Amino acid sequence: MITCDVKIARSFISDEDYITAHGKTTLGYKQVADKSGPGSEWLGWRDILADPNDAILEEIDSLAASIRKEADIFIVCGIGGSYLGAKAVIDALSSHFSSNGPEIIYAGHHMGGKYLQELLQYIQAPKADGSQKQVYLNVISKSGSTLETALSFRAIRKLMEEMYSDDASKHIICTTSEEGGILNQLIDAKGYRKFVIPNDIGGRFSVLTPVGLIPIAVAGIDIKALFYGAVAAYNRYEEDNEDIIEYTSLRNALHKAGKTIDVISCFEPELASFGGWIQQLMGESEGKEGKGIFPAVASFSTDLHSLGQFIQQGKRSLMETFLIVENSFSKIEVEELEGDDDKLNYLAGKSFHDINKKARLGTTEAHQDGNVPIINLTIDALNAENLGELIYFYELSTGVFVYSLGVNPFNQPGVEDYKKAMYRLLGKD
Amino acid sequence: MITCDVKIARSFISDEDYITAHGKTTLGYKQVADKSGPGSEWLGWRDILADPNDAILEEIDSLAASIRKEADIFIVCGIGGSYLGAKAVIDALSSHFSSNGPEIIYAGHHMGGKYLQELLQYIQAPKADGSQKQVYLNVISKSGSTLETALSFRAIRKLMEEMYSDDASKHIICTTSEEGGILNQLIDAKGYRKFVIPNDIGGRFSVLTPVGLIPIAVAGIDIKALFYGAVAAYNRYEEDNEDIIEYTSLRNALHKAGKTIDVISCFEPELASFGGWIQQLMGESEGKEGKGIFPAVASFSTDLHSLGQFIQQGKRSLMETFLIVENSFSKIEVEELEGDDDKLNYLAGKSFHDINKKARLGTTEAHQDGNVPIINLTIDALNAENLGELIYFYELSTGVFVYSLGVNPFNQPGVEDYKKAMYRLLGKD
Repeated sequence: MITCDVKIARSFISDEDYITAHGKTTLGYKQVADKSGPGSEWLGWRDILADPNDAILEEIDSLAASIRKEADIFIVCGIGGSYLGAKAVIDALSSHFSSNGPEIIYAGHHMGGKYLQELLQYIQAPKADGSQKQVYLNVISKSGSTLETALSFRAIRKLMEEMYSDDASKHIICTTSEEGGILNQLIDAKGYRKFVIPNDIGGRFSVLTPVGLIPIAVAGIDIKALFYGAVAAYNRYEEDNEDIIEYTSLRNALHKAGKTIDVISCFEPELASFGGWIQQLMGESEGKEGKGIFPAVASFSTDLHSLGQFIQQGKRSLMETFLIVENSFSKIEVEELEGDDDKLNYLAGKSFHDINKKARLGTTEAHQDGNVPIINLTIDALNAENLGELIYFYELSTGVFVYSLGVNPFNQPGVEDYKKAMYRLLGKD
Repeated sequence: MITCDVKIARSFISDEDYITAHGKTTLGYKQVADKSGPGSEWLGWRDILADPNDAILEEIDSLAASIRKEADIFIVCGIGGSYLGAKAVIDALSSHFSSNGPEIIYAGHHMGGKYLQELLQYIQAPKADGSQKQVYLNVISKSGSTLETALSFRAIRKLMEEMYSDDASKHIICTTSEEGGILNQLIDAKGYRKFVIPNDIGGRFSVLTPVGLIPIAVAGIDIKALFYGAVAAYNRYEEDNEDIIEYTSLRNALHKAGKTIDVISCFEPELASFGGWIQQLMGESEGKEGKGIFPAVASFSTDLHSLGQFIQQGKRSLMETFLIVENSFSKIEVEELEGDDDKLNYLAGKSFHDINKKARLGTTEAHQDGNVPIINLTIDALNAENLGELIYFYELSTGVFVYSLGVNPFNQPGVEDYKKAMYRLLGKD
């Protein structure tokens, strides 16, 4: 369950400006709800929640269970929206120093040659007991021709064909469009297992489709809880959209007031990658026509010791959004130490979560004093269900906010510009 | 060797504004050079390069060699400037999927309870052969009382005392002030090995002191090459500071022109953490008195698929700095594929580095068309010597740029604000 607290941010906005922004976001919400805005052919991320398809969740769960039994390594080969959602959820809910299933490795998300070369060596290196590693690969691309992903896929599948001969195709899963594109041709030729990215869902809105769900399930996370968390949020906001309207109205008013940066900040290191997913979702949706608030990501308290000074006293062009987990998800507390040689016994018996909470409250107080508008988004516990809710909260509020700016939230015309120039330089016909 | 190319950024600035900015940075440079500006008691990062102390480099190398022989795990316990510099260099020069020495783990850089709890479990878990792990810890803090670091250190050293009894103190190295503070008391009481952070060097300028050099040496990196790379840059810029003046003049003029964000972008995933070090160095130095350009970090081409759209077409409040590695540091190239089923044979024989370079040139072209002022900083090869040069380039240009804004680059008064509020909420006397 998400709580959205905009009190601090609201104190920076006059009633008049708030009412104007509220009017715009109410219209934006309507454009999402009745599919009347530009890009409305891309609203499938709502439809899958309005009418859940349990069969696909079960198919993914069953695939994931068999991979978890077999695999030492599971490679997620995709870029942007093809991996950021999975990474967000997996990093939020996995152990930091061990794994209860296959090692998840990302590839195809950049053009780094050293990375790919070392990955190929790592795949080939035998395990401690001398046996060959069992590698599975999930390549994720609507077209199959995104260069970073396609080049990595070519190199890795060649190696897998050498390692597993005719069985290689059993180790490869493609998540791609229903029809057309290179990956569908390869699926036909090689017999790879196929999962479909719905035609009406864009990459950055695709985490709750096979795009995100397969890697998340392979990481051992309950995808039904995740998905139905999003369904619960969908149903709640269909009944009462006040939180969405408040959140987006504040961002609309702060945008108008000249704020150019939204520092999306978590206090749990587990949520840093979730910030990365939000960064793409917001940045790619709103950064058009000379508009938008640049989404920066910070992981506190670490980054209080790097960005903290700027946020406190630098150019007043920023707002902050805190992603908060209310309840503790670890049991560790400060132990009493005989002699108290480091003078920390005054904290003995306090949990790290409580101390971290005081750091957050102290930060809130300090940044508010520093004239930073702050929005607090709180989930009660760090689990799959709540992350599902948070995913939908951000998808919906991004759609509403961007419509409130008079912009199409669902295209990304500017992403093509570097690709066009790159392909020309590479001599592609 | 660094090349600084400001051509594109320069085209956004009128001659008059450039001349004004040039005058301010020339004065800023003078304040650094003759120690006449506010905070000039913090210029020790220049003195250590003017008069290198080989004895300390050798002492660190010898310690690192013995740790590399013994340790399975080396824990770097520190926050902000106490670990970001080491992480920047280590991530730039290490393998992605294997290690030729102890595993380097960061701790004490946040208040995450789950992270610390899992780290303690990981340390205790026996190795594959059933034997106990050999753990070494380097705690890095001027005062020893920075809360995140002190709490983690308390928990980890307690465990190490249980694991190694009286030998525990041989596994712990403290990097701290010459005198005073909790760590010096613990050093006296426990006999930990001590290294000194010079009094006239602030945290974010300390990577070339034992703060950064010990972890970097333990990671197997040539710290003499790193340090003397910085010395070479020091000597070069003492003779000819034109690159520094040009770079900082452009940033000064773009600041005045209203740019609020500098997207520091690398095209090599290895340099992403180096961006994190720059982010602290710049952000904490310039973000004062309502001034400064917010330093954001992007890792391309990954982030072209998340931030790319915003950079191309969103609110025109940003500039970009590209960190470029000219020569390839991997041998991998695209292999010819029989049948060309993925239509990539037009790239066969091209190296990933060359393709990545075309992605960069395409991005440059596209972002320039999108009215983004771009500065290119190029090193010829990715090695310790060049990183040393780049470290000094950024230290010096940060000092000069911040003086050009009329601000003291070397304090961080705003970082204390959250701490004060936090300590009050924690009930500290």
